[in-house]
Amino acid sequence: MPLTIGVDVGGTKVAAGVVDDDGKILARQLRPTPSTSAELIEAAIASAVTELCSSYDVTAVGIGAAGWVDAARTTVVFAPNLAWRNEPLRDEVARLVDLPVYVENDANAAAWGEHRFGAGRGESDMVCITVGTGIGSGFVFSGHMYRGHYGFGAEAGHMRVVPDGRPCGCGQRGCWEQYASGRALVREAQERAETRGAAAARLLELAAGDVKSITGPHVTTAASEGDPLAVECFRVIGRWLGQGLASLAAILDPGRFVISGGVSEAGDLLVKPAREAYAEVVTGGEHRPPGDIRLAELGPDAGLVGAADLARVRD
Amino acid sequence: MPLTIGVDVGGTKVAAGVVDDDGKILARQLRPTPSTSAELIEAAIASAVTELCSSYDVTAVGIGAAGWVDAARTTVVFAPNLAWRNEPLRDEVARLVDLPVYVENDANAAAWGEHRFGAGRGESDMVCITVGTGIGSGFVFSGHMYRGHYGFGAEAGHMRVVPDGRPCGCGQRGCWEQYASGRALVREAQERAETRGAAAARLLELAAGDVKSITGPHVTTAASEGDPLAVECFRVIGRWLGQGLASLAAILDPGRFVISGGVSEAGDLLVKPAREAYAEVVTGGEHRPPGDIRLAELGPDAGLVGAADLARVRD
Repeated sequence: MPLTIGVDVGGTKVAAGVVDDDGKILARQLRPTPSTSAELIEAAIASAVTELCSSYDVTAVGIGAAGWVDAARTTVVFAPNLAWRNEPLRDEVARLVDLPVYVENDANAAAWGEHRFGAGRGESDMVCITVGTGIGSGFVFSGHMYRGHYGFGAEAGHMRVVPDGRPCGCGQRGCWEQYASGRALVREAQERAETRGAAAARLLELAAGDVKSITGPHVTTAASEGDPLAVECFRVIGRWLGQGLASLAAILDPGRFVISGGVSEAGDLLVKPAREAYAEVVTGGEHRPPGDIRLAELGPDAGLVGAADLARVRD
Repeated sequence: MPLTIGVDVGGTKVAAGVVDDDGKILARQLRPTPSTSAELIEAAIASAVTELCSSYDVTAVGIGAAGWVDAARTTVVFAPNLAWRNEPLRDEVARLVDLPVYVENDANAAAWGEHRFGAGRGESDMVCITVGTGIGSGFVFSGHMYRGHYGFGAEAGHMRVVPDGRPCGCGQRGCWEQYASGRALVREAQERAETRGAAAARLLELAAGDVKSITGPHVTTAASEGDPLAVECFRVIGRWLGQGLASLAAILDPGRFVISGGVSEAGDLLVKPAREAYAEVVTGGEHRPPGDIRLAELGPDAGLVGAADLARVRD
């Protein structure tokens, strides 16, 4: 049975795992991300891989990296939260671990993981939206990863949804991820807590009385308990999510949407308003099959599992 | 040399032509579109094809139809301006002309024509935007036509660019085609003429003094002469065009954009502000190659030529 290693490199941690061809994780290694040094990040990846290789016979390593990967998939052109600028990641890691290395954008890797082993199984045309702090996306068309001409495709979080809208970390304004992400959720909650303290009592309690300390998990906790203000915050970002999916349906017409990422752990609180808004605003809705919008199944492992599988199937 | 016939079925006319494998049109037939009867439209197509077949030996017929074509490409699911509702167009026409028939969305056919013989030559990842009364679009990825899971992809004109924006013919609000199309151009001109009569003197002259009679060609004529108000109208819709292209770049990352359709005949009046807006707002612009946004080369023949070629290569 051919085993590969998947590595998910995020802003705070490097998660590596040995994965079999059923997408099952047999062993794990975790390292903090030394985010300020490209060399140290590569050393952390190599250390985790080497440790796993001491117990398992693996044939390749797949890396899901939070950044723009070039079309040749050798180089991370830039990474907003990591010290990578035109970093030849593939060759640097391959040199350290002496195995074939495959590099993929992290949201693409997560989409591939869900496509192969999660909520995208059996659907050859799938759009996966990762709702975390921001919005990542990955597309599978005709059973293959879609990367775009320069490797920079599937950055749907930077589709503009509001002219002259909220400023985005990408330097532009009005990007979708400013309205339908974890950051947007926190913003909705903090704005309400600022102006409607009484209604926000539960949220403020969770945040020890400090509006600015309200986090996404606090909103999820309160909303799961039925707190009306927290539920309202999910409704707002869930509707923005569904409206963006409707635009993506007009453009891409996938057979299925899969919603992954930390915020999707809130389940129906996020996805129900998204489904409702999608049905209301999708163009030509009466001539389409109903939208198939599902929650992801692999949780935070999607990127690791997807990267490992991409290193195996070499799509 | 294998010849095929391409047919472009629009709201007002059925244009058919014999096309060789260099994309050259050897003969043409034109019929008015009997838009209220599905049967009569098919008869008009068959009449044009039969006439052409009397002088040329052709192997297949490709039809570009202004409507949603299903994934099997046999049926026009619906057509906003034609009497087609779940119309089995392929088989009906094949029965009448006794030749293999291929059906394609008209904007897809135009994109394919430009890809093969026009401004998209040599570029395997191309997005073609047809700016006419509305906005059509067609995508070529890795040298193949992209149609989506149900055949309804590449309807980028219905990407939402303004929340609660202008009403669209599709029943939704804020669709891109309400801001960057010929209809939007006329709207900009009429609104200005209504409120700034003196500045709109040339436009009003062209429209015989009647604001409501100002057409797209009037605005193009005045703008080509340098009329500041008409130039301003193009600048407004050109910028909306470029901003939409920037969203499509984030999602699709093509190697090239081709701008076709009647409004694109205004050339730089439309494309220059589009290029400027694109460069300003495209996400991660400093890490991308500059946008490659070109004018189409085949003019109104793109759909006919593309449909004929699709019937030949069967992509």
